[in-house]
Amino acid sequence: MKVDVLAELATTLEQRKTAAPDSSYVASLHAKGLNKILEKVGEESVETILAAKDAQASGDKKDVIYETADLWFHSLVMLSHLDLSPQDVLEELARRFNLSGLDEKANRTK
Amino acid sequence: MKVDVLAELATTLEQRKTAAPDSSYVASLHAKGLNKILEKVGEESVETILAAKDAQASGDKKDVIYETADLWFHSLVMLSHLDLSPQDVLEELARRFNLSGLDEKANRTK
Amino acid sequence: MKVDVLAELATTLEQRKTAAPDSSYVASLHAKGLNKILEKVGEESVETILAAKDAQASGDKKDVIYETADLWFHSLVMLSHLDLSPQDVLEELARRFNLSGLDEKANRTK
Amino acid sequence: MKVDVLAELATTLEQRKTAAPDSSYVASLHAKGLNKILEKVGEESVETILAAKDAQASGDKKDVIYETADLWFHSLVMLSHLDLSPQDVLEELARRFNLSGLDEKANRTK
Repeated sequence: MKVDVLAELATTLEQRKTAAPDSSYVASLHAKGLNKILEKVGEESVETILAAKDAQASGDKKDVIYETADLWFHSLVMLSHLDLSPQDVLEELARRFNLSGLDEKANRTK
Repeated sequence: MKVDVLAELATTLEQRKTAAPDSSYVASLHAKGLNKILEKVGEESVETILAAKDAQASGDKKDVIYETADLWFHSLVMLSHLDLSPQDVLEELARRFNLSGLDEKANRTK
Repeated sequence: MKVDVLAELATTLEQRKTAAPDSSYVASLHAKGLNKILEKVGEESVETILAAKDAQASGDKKDVIYETADLWFHSLVMLSHLDLSPQDVLEELARRFNLSGLDEKANRTK
Repeated sequence: MKVDVLAELATTLEQRKTAAPDSSYVASLHAKGLNKILEKVGEESVETILAAKDAQASGDKKDVIYETADLWFHSLVMLSHLDLSPQDVLEELARRFNLSGLDEKANRTK
C-alpha cells in the first residue's frame, strides 16, 4: 500500500525534462546542463551534512528531512539528465543487499 | 508490482544498527558515529559527481548507478543514525510535488 | 621577492569581518554565520572538482585557477570566522613536510 | 620574514610528481590519476566542514587547522597534476582584491 514516490517523481521529472527552460526549475536545470545539476548535488550534500550536525546538537531533525529531500531530488534530476532512472539505482541496492528484488516479486500481488 | 526497496533496505539497516560493531559495515559506521557517516555521504557525493562527468564523456553509465547507490545507501544510514526513515523524506518529496501521497492512495489496491 | 598574498588577504579579511553586513560580501558572510560560510566552502570545492574535470578534457585551465581561488578564499573566510589565520595552516603544512619553517628562517633576510 | 610555505611545498610536490608511485603518497596519487586526487579534495573539504562545526561547538580548533591543511595540500596536488602552480591561484586572488601583487612588488626588496 506504500506509494512509490520515487517512481511517480521520476515520471514527473521526465515530463519536465523536455519542457521549455523557463517553464519549471527542473527544465531550467536541464537547460543549464550537467555541471549545474552536479553543483546542486554537491551543494545539497553539504547542506544535508550541516543539517545533520545541527540536528545532533539541537534535536530538531526537520532540516535533515528537508535537505535530504533536496539531495535525493537533485540526484533524480541527474539520473534523468543521463537517461537513467531511480529504478536502476534501486535494483543495484536490491542486488547488493539480497533484497527480494523485482523479478522475485513479480508474481506477488503487493 | 514495484518492490519497495527503500523500505526493505531501511528495515535491514535498523536491524544492523543495533548489531555488534564488528558484525557488519553498517554496525561499524554507527559505532564510529555521525561524523564518519557524514564523511561517507560527502565522499559518495563527490564520487557520484565524478562518475556523472565520466559518463557524459564516455557514455558508460554503470558507475553513475553504482555511486548513486552508494550515496543513497549512506544517506539512509545517516537517517537511521538520527532515528529518521526514508519514508520521512519520501513524504516531504510527495508533499512538494503534489504526488498522490500516502493517505490518498490508502484505498487503492496497488 | 614573492608577495605574501595570503597574509595580505587575511589582513583585508579581518578588516571586513567587523564591517557592516551590507558593506561587503565578506561582512555579509560573517553576518549569515558559520553554516553559510561552510556551504560556500563545499560549493567551491565541487566547482573546483568540475573545473578540473573539464580542464582535463579541454585543456583550458582558466576555470581551475578561478575556482581554486574561490575555494581558498572561502576557506580563509572560515578561518577568520573561527579566529584562525592562514599562518596557522601554513605552519602545520611546514611542520608536516619539514619545510624550513618560520623560526629557522627568522635570521634570514628574505 | 614570512616563509613562503606554499612555494616551497609546490617545489617539493613537483619533485614527488615524477617519483616512483610507491615512493611517496604524492607519487601514488599522481599514479592513480585525477579522479583519485579530486576525491581527496572532496573528502578533505567535508572533513574541514565537520571540523569547523565541531570547533564551533567545543572551542577546540586544532582539527580545523589540520583538516584545512589537508584540503590545501590536496588542492596543491591537483594544481600540480594539471601543471598549474599555487602562484597562479595567488595571482588571481591578488588581482581580485587589489593586493599589491607580484609586478608592483618586483622592485621592492621585501
